[in-house]
Amino acid sequence: MSDLPAKEKDELIESLGDSLQEAVDASDEQQVTEIVESISSQEALRQASLMKADDREQMMSIMTPELAAEMVEEAPANLAATMIEGLETSVAAKIMEELHPATQADIVQEMDKDNAEAILSVMDSETAADVRSLSQYDPDSAGGLMELEAFSFFNDEKVNDVVKSMLSDDEEFERHRGQHPYVVDESGRLVGVVSLRSLLRSRRAVPLVDIMSPAISVSPQTSMNELAVLFDENPFLGIPVVDDRGILLGVVSRIEIAEAEQERAELDSLSRQQVGDELRSMPTLLRSKRRLAWLSSNIVLNIIAASVISAYEETLAAVIAIAIFLPMVSDMSGCSGNQAVGVSMRELALGLTRPVDVFHVLRKELSVGIINGIVLGILIGIVAWLWKDNAYLGLVIGLALSVNTLIAVSIGGTVPLLLKRFGVDPAVASGPLLTTVTDMAGFFLVLSLASLFMPQLLG
Amino acid sequence: MSDLPAKEKDELIESLGDSLQEAVDASDEQQVTEIVESISSQEALRQASLMKADDREQMMSIMTPELAAEMVEEAPANLAATMIEGLETSVAAKIMEELHPATQADIVQEMDKDNAEAILSVMDSETAADVRSLSQYDPDSAGGLMELEAFSFFNDEKVNDVVKSMLSDDEEFERHRGQHPYVVDESGRLVGVVSLRSLLRSRRAVPLVDIMSPAISVSPQTSMNELAVLFDENPFLGIPVVDDRGILLGVVSRIEIAEAEQERAELDSLSRQQVGDELRSMPTLLRSKRRLAWLSSNIVLNIIAASVISAYEETLAAVIAIAIFLPMVSDMSGCSGNQAVGVSMRELALGLTRPVDVFHVLRKELSVGIINGIVLGILIGIVAWLWKDNAYLGLVIGLALSVNTLIAVSIGGTVPLLLKRFGVDPAVASGPLLTTVTDMAGFFLVLSLASLFMPQLLG
Repeated sequence: MSDLPAKEKDELIESLGDSLQEAVDASDEQQVTEIVESISSQEALRQASLMKADDREQMMSIMTPELAAEMVEEAPANLAATMIEGLETSVAAKIMEELHPATQADIVQEMDKDNAEAILSVMDSETAADVRSLSQYDPDSAGGLMELEAFSFFNDEKVNDVVKSMLSDDEEFERHRGQHPYVVDESGRLVGVVSLRSLLRSRRAVPLVDIMSPAISVSPQTSMNELAVLFDENPFLGIPVVDDRGILLGVVSRIEIAEAEQERAELDSLSRQQVGDELRSMPTLLRSKRRLAWLSSNIVLNIIAASVISAYEETLAAVIAIAIFLPMVSDMSGCSGNQAVGVSMRELALGLTRPVDVFHVLRKELSVGIINGIVLGILIGIVAWLWKDNAYLGLVIGLALSVNTLIAVSIGGTVPLLLKRFGVDPAVASGPLLTTVTDMAGFFLVLSLASLFMPQLLG
Repeated sequence: MSDLPAKEKDELIESLGDSLQEAVDASDEQQVTEIVESISSQEALRQASLMKADDREQMMSIMTPELAAEMVEEAPANLAATMIEGLETSVAAKIMEELHPATQADIVQEMDKDNAEAILSVMDSETAADVRSLSQYDPDSAGGLMELEAFSFFNDEKVNDVVKSMLSDDEEFERHRGQHPYVVDESGRLVGVVSLRSLLRSRRAVPLVDIMSPAISVSPQTSMNELAVLFDENPFLGIPVVDDRGILLGVVSRIEIAEAEQERAELDSLSRQQVGDELRSMPTLLRSKRRLAWLSSNIVLNIIAASVISAYEETLAAVIAIAIFLPMVSDMSGCSGNQAVGVSMRELALGLTRPVDVFHVLRKELSVGIINGIVLGILIGIVAWLWKDNAYLGLVIGLALSVNTLIAVSIGGTVPLLLKRFGVDPAVASGPLLTTVTDMAGFFLVLSLASLFMPQLLG
């Protein structure tokens, strides 16, 4: 399909969607399965999330649990939870059983507690126990990210037992890729790890305890950041997770961490829009409510900024042309400030800047701010002068933008550092804070300079 | 150090910075080495990027090349290139030789061509040849992301040769973690891959060709996205890269791809601020120029929006209170629109939305937009009414915000899809496009409604 031009591909996918809808309407089990098997699970998920809830549930009930699970694996946890909660308990349980254990736990955490219990109670009891134990941890901690099934052996086993296990059970082996054989005592406490090299080097009758070395391990509460640092500093592909008694609970893999970090970076980039994890398949009223929460606090910030204009109504009435440039000056300064926020966010993420560097950042921003302020001030000054044929208007607007650019980059550069210092997420709070200040300062500068030059502006 | 309270930790780090500066000023090699060894390479990089260029070069020249390389590995490629280009060629070459091959190639691509050639010409010739061959590929392609040293064997070698190689060379082995033994013919063409399981299962005298299976491989031009899909669909830890004659060039690892994707997600989240890869250690004039490029195009967008106000100067002059609410209406609608942009960006990233879904998205946004428009319109309408004690002013402002919210979410939700359809990066272009339209529409709605209700507003 990848060779088709974009337009034909779109049409093909749309017609697939129509046939899928027909097949669901007709409860045609075979047809649904055939269509879903012919597309990627990602595409199947998209089709499902475009359907009405009833149709989607109908579709998921007539698909095989394996196919449904493949599709659910592609969904973010909140969407996956909604998709599964709506199903009949027995169908839901069958699909849940086919999911990756970490996915199961993430989904259970997103579900209504009663629904989750209902589904867990009809699931295979061993799987349900695993899900219950995984879902007690924060999804971004070692406990939430670990694989429960460690590639472990008892301390009375021998090299031969490891080799046999590697050779015997194909599926088991795949699941432990990247894990080393861990050695535990009779109560499940982690006592060591065996390297592949010592395995190859040793005769099959050698006891594991003779060739194992001490294992680095973490507690289930270890955060994703701490894990990322550990993997950065060590070549391991996996790190065992142990509880406070030293009992081996599972293993976090390097890949799991890298993927979780990627997901978080993507979510972070969206937190600036204040939409959280909204998806359009959520109920309209919920989406409305969540968006309004942030918008209505923004009204307050806007009223504060607008009150500056209100204080200068007489000036405005005298030189109405000023009103054209008010939004322009505040918007341009907002953009300059946001650039400085962007650089600070990037430098914070790279570790090149720390909250103590406020003065260094300020100095660096001031030097750029002076140049950009002068350039932008001259540009907009000329625009204002030519537009209204009034050189003093150009002076007022240009000067206001110059000074406000300087204010904006200073605040934009330093606010993320200060917020971080006080434990507030700079990605969420920097933008609104910056915009309110640059709006207020912009309005104030334009209007107070205009009052000052009133005789010349009117002359 | 992690147990200290934040303030003391900051002071400690600052005093370390002062001592480091002193040691550099005094060219005290031992002191510099001691300090750098006592801090993380991340922190060393931060200290270096806070120094003046001369001091930083002095510091890097007196450190051991190994320590300098560890520090350079932490830097983004453009900063690393600047740090190394400034050094004496022989010093630069020694540090380059200590870097990871993929880092070397990324840095060379960021360097001035003549500088890069000068440094490469004094480097170890084998390493230099590797760098030259890696740096011809896009850093985000299989060629740019691969390890050059594959864990490969000739087709006349036996199981014993692989096991011997695994046992003998510690460093070599570490480097190939996650790679399978690849089998090549006498001209270097990839002919197969041997699984760990078949290795363990076979006697040492068995020729590799008897137990190998066909290998999946990619071309060096394969994009990061295609690689991510391959790794998603297959359990491999690495995929071999071959040229068009089938010759094995290197191996891309799953971890390398996951890390590269994470880095890209972080950069993407910054592209909205239009600051690209700016770091504050870059020259001021360059930073100014790059930021101004985007800001000056933004002036044009602002002038277009402001011209709407200009067309209604008479209305404004008659009801000056309108000027207070103009920026408020456009800013609030901009925020609503940006929320819709955020949800679309997220759904595009998750594959839940495709450019063909424009009408579906529009319908979903309209339903939220109607609710939020009414709520926000009533809120701001009440504010305007009470503030100026004029119910008609409240009506005009509230109605304008209601309608503009609807416009903003419709455009915000669909513009990313349309941009993507036409091959433009929605992360970069959606914001400015949206803001210009919501500003224009906001100004127009407020002012034209005000003209309509002029008698009542003045009454």
